[in-house]
Amino acid sequence: MTTIDDTINQWLRDAHAMEEQAEQMLESQSSRIENYPELAARIKRHLEETQSQLERLERCLERRGAATSAMKDLTAKASAMMQGLSSMMAGDEVMKGALASYAFEQFEIASYRILITAAETAGDIETARLCEEICREEEAMAADLADMIPELTRSYLTRENADLDEAKR
Amino acid sequence: MTTIDDTINQWLRDAHAMEEQAEQMLESQSSRIENYPELAARIKRHLEETQSQLERLERCLERRGAATSAMKDLTAKASAMMQGLSSMMAGDEVMKGALASYAFEQFEIASYRILITAAETAGDIETARLCEEICREEEAMAADLADMIPELTRSYLTRENADLDEAKR
Repeated sequence: MTTIDDTINQWLRDAHAMEEQAEQMLESQSSRIENYPELAARIKRHLEETQSQLERLERCLERRGAATSAMKDLTAKASAMMQGLSSMMAGDEVMKGALASYAFEQFEIASYRILITAAETAGDIETARLCEEICREEEAMAADLADMIPELTRSYLTRENADLDEAKR
Repeated sequence: MTTIDDTINQWLRDAHAMEEQAEQMLESQSSRIENYPELAARIKRHLEETQSQLERLERCLERRGAATSAMKDLTAKASAMMQGLSSMMAGDEVMKGALASYAFEQFEIASYRILITAAETAGDIETARLCEEICREEEAMAADLADMIPELTRSYLTRENADLDEAKR
């Protein structure tokens, strides 16, 4: 086991922790949104993708012989940043939720790009391929959120201006 | 003063708080990086841009007649998510720093895109134009970080594999 392989295992566990945090955030958002059906549907679809990503990452860690028992500790350590992101979404405000989701997707994209380069450097083509596959799913979600943001903003402001309680959810 | 104008003023203050947080993060990173000169130089350049963005946002808030005295409270409120991002960068690890910086840039980009749509909706073309200008600076920084990540990853892994203490900084 080289240092590079150790590092890749740690980064894969970080990615697993990141997806666990994503699952929580998406579930929470999905249950809260009431008046923005297009956004709610996309979040629900990405929640299912995220659950599948968790399974794929677990299989990848097993294949690499990386212990998953220490995963809980690493999860706690890795999630400082994600706690910040989540706490921003603790309110019921749909705009802040969309913003935090978009930033979180981009965080995931950069994480997988680092992992792709690392796995290629170590010659683990299967891990590189999996990370590319997951990265494309995150990129599609980020692109869809970016596309939705202008219409979401207009819709939010119209509802808010009409003094509708429902604007924020 | 309409509700939309109130909301825009609040989002502009949030953007100001976000850039204050960015300034801190970039200063801290800039002082810490020792062995990655290309990244350090780009961060230093963006630190100067960020300081200019703060001034431009202050002038915009003044022009809109938005009180800046309440800014401190709003800053504290807005920075929950950013504290998370910063805490992730509290270590001296260059890869996590680059990752958090990239996610932060994307958070900024989405914030300005929301503000552009809102300002256009309210007919404040000058604010929309300023937010477009700042957004382009953030997009350039995000694109440069994305371009640097593969080489940064390889360089980091090579140093780490050679067991160099300097890898992380």
